Amino acid sequence: MRATFCALQEYGYAGLSIQRIADEADLSKSTFYHHFDGKDDLLLSFQEFMLAQFDKIVQLESTGDPERDLRTLIGFILDDLPDYGEMPEKDAVLRSLVELRAQAVQDAEFRKKYAETDEQFAKRFERLIRDGIERGEFAEVDPERTSRMLLTILHGAILQHATRDDDPAVEIRESIDEYIDQRLVVEDAHSTD
Amino acid sequence: MRATFCALQEYGYAGLSIQRIADEADLSKSTFYHHFDGKDDLLLSFQEFMLAQFDKIVQLESTGDPERDLRTLIGFILDDLPDYGEMPEKDAVLRSLVELRAQAVQDAEFRKKYAETDEQFAKRFERLIRDGIERGEFAEVDPERTSRMLLTILHGAILQHATRDDDPAVEIRESIDEYIDQRLVVEDAHSTD
Repeated sequence: MRATFCALQEYGYAGLSIQRIADEADLSKSTFYHHFDGKDDLLLSFQEFMLAQFDKIVQLESTGDPERDLRTLIGFILDDLPDYGEMPEKDAVLRSLVELRAQAVQDAEFRKKYAETDEQFAKRFERLIRDGIERGEFAEVDPERTSRMLLTILHGAILQHATRDDDPAVEIRESIDEYIDQRLVVEDAHSTD
Repeated sequence: MRATFCALQEYGYAGLSIQRIADEADLSKSTFYHHFDGKDDLLLSFQEFMLAQFDKIVQLESTGDPERDLRTLIGFILDDLPDYGEMPEKDAVLRSLVELRAQAVQDAEFRKKYAETDEQFAKRFERLIRDGIERGEFAEVDPERTSRMLLTILHGAILQHATRDDDPAVEIRESIDEYIDQRLVVEDAHSTD
């Protein structure tokens, strides 16, 4: 998986091949073909691996406080992952994510995988939002719609982060915090001047 | 430009070549190399062409009413472009946009182009928002931050639309309308129960 990530960084999706990943891993091509049908099959597994790594970190950092956990989750995506020595640098991760996600335009297997991944993330947001509402800490928003909106904002932020040199992530982070303050958190004064 | 679009639809970015675009256009490869340095140079011009087409439609549909024009602009991106017989089907346009945008991960020229394109869109939103505030129709939001947020939401919507089969665009459209209602439009009652 690390070799896949390194090869993806170095050559991009278009230049990626099982040969190059094998070279990166100091293994033979046949070892790879024993486990994977080809480049795209390997990349689907790579996605799952990345998501599992992310899940592990989210679990480790969870506090049980919905507002804090929601902001932490968003921060992991937009700002920085805590360093557990297992995840590579965030910029590189986001760039790879965007390159792989774009393959879904042409590839139905990737589209299926991403619909699933999106649902997992949306459900995670939704749980935190429902929790917050139950505790009376969040306003009575529509949890499903709000979680989809957050997911959409994050997708937009990741896409821009990975495809521009002048990264708008900091400003986007501020906007999301504002969105959470104004739409979700109950204690917050709603100014509507 | 139409041949480029058709070839991009058929082969995707990875399978695209000047030869295939030339075949699609019934022209010789040398005609293309007379005008463009290669595939990526042609695609940068293609982007500009698409944006110019979009601009033309936005101009034609402008009413001078900021709220209406803002919703129309968002609708063109998320729902459907009015049919002037010049733009291909929206789904195909958005898929091509995502494929091309992902090239910016590896290509600095594309990154520069997209930073510019994003700025153009953000400025367009910003003008409409400033207009609405001046007329007292929009709340006193930060025009720059709000326009960036809208752009980010649209990027996220386009990315999901192009890379999933279960298109969440309708729900996202509702969320954006809600966002505009609650954050921007002054006449609207702010419910904060």
